[in-house]
Amino acid sequence: MTQTHIRSVFDRELETLLAEMKRMGDMVETALLNAADALAGHDEELAQRVRSGDKEIDALEAHIQTQCARLMALRAPTASDLRAVLSIMRIAVALERCGDYAKNLAKRSKLLSDYGNLDKSTLSVSQMTRTVVSRLRQALDSYVARDESKAILIRETDHEIDQMYNSLFRELLTYMLEDPRNIASAMHLQFVGKNMERVGDHATRIAEQTLYLTTGEMPAAERPKTEIQGF
Amino acid sequence: MTQTHIRSVFDRELETLLAEMKRMGDMVETALLNAADALAGHDEELAQRVRSGDKEIDALEAHIQTQCARLMALRAPTASDLRAVLSIMRIAVALERCGDYAKNLAKRSKLLSDYGNLDKSTLSVSQMTRTVVSRLRQALDSYVARDESKAILIRETDHEIDQMYNSLFRELLTYMLEDPRNIASAMHLQFVGKNMERVGDHATRIAEQTLYLTTGEMPAAERPKTEIQGF
Repeated sequence: MTQTHIRSVFDRELETLLAEMKRMGDMVETALLNAADALAGHDEELAQRVRSGDKEIDALEAHIQTQCARLMALRAPTASDLRAVLSIMRIAVALERCGDYAKNLAKRSKLLSDYGNLDKSTLSVSQMTRTVVSRLRQALDSYVARDESKAILIRETDHEIDQMYNSLFRELLTYMLEDPRNIASAMHLQFVGKNMERVGDHATRIAEQTLYLTTGEMPAAERPKTEIQGF
Repeated sequence: MTQTHIRSVFDRELETLLAEMKRMGDMVETALLNAADALAGHDEELAQRVRSGDKEIDALEAHIQTQCARLMALRAPTASDLRAVLSIMRIAVALERCGDYAKNLAKRSKLLSDYGNLDKSTLSVSQMTRTVVSRLRQALDSYVARDESKAILIRETDHEIDQMYNSLFRELLTYMLEDPRNIASAMHLQFVGKNMERVGDHATRIAEQTLYLTTGEMPAAERPKTEIQGF
């Protein structure tokens, strides 16, 4: 086999992996948005679909990890080729976690319906979910396009999500203080909010993989952080 | 260079990585235990030490990731050698997250002192922390010793931690219902409890890396799960 041939085999296999990673990203985004819709619309059937769909996301992650390990073992990539495979592995891990949060949100939507909802805060949580999904999308786009400046922007605006979460927390605290019967629902919503903040963190980690891929190094500088306030 | 020579160079480099992973495990365990002690003993100085020590854990993780990538690029390991490197990378990620939870716990201990503590629940959280640290230790031991049966045991008993968390949640709920002034402290403690449950999840993930290393496959069977109750 010529070097060129080996090269093109590797590139083709990497392309396939990238396509699978993108498909996984689409599945996770859909799961998160559906879970948010199910919560806002008390749609138990949609919530159930999100819950049962998580297995498929997990299976795709396992498949991507296996294929990446196989590609490394067979083709022994170096330099930016190796970074490409490693970063896909890391992104798949991040996406799998985000899928778990979608499933968890879908589980809680049933409990929240049973308790009776805090509609205003439910809307805040849905809004927050849409915002983090959009960040996840941008992070994945920055990776696929190897767009450093987009990746840096995502990293530098992560604290906006932390602020959304802090507002939500304060809002929920007032409901709990107002009426103890709100406590259980409010705690569930606060959990969901916290999980969405974590999805935001994963979007940042994905953006960091863009920088790792293009520069060969993980960004070292601290990104802006919002201090724990209410939380 | 002979094959034997290449082999021994790889083995030596892997040994170094393994030693660094173990050192990282020690640092994370110490951080978690110190954070729990700082919380229980209102020891702000100790909490501060945990907070500032997290940078060192992050730096060690970055170093391990770089060294693993370097080892893969230079030595192109295959089969169980490749799995050894990949699993060390994954364990380092898990440990870094556990370090973050220790730091977060140390941040909250100051806030909890300011609010006034719920001493009984604080003790429950400290106890839970000690339990998950012991699981983390066992998971790392199972990995180093390539002890499959130990790894399987950790995986199968993860729901015990979930149950501890559920008990804590119910305990905190009663305090909140009893007196709204307990709400803020209780929510902080519940967060800490949830984070410790996540440390338990990471211990399980580390145990799964033992199985990946020894069998070449990630365990597929579902492990026992406790359903979200209060949470």
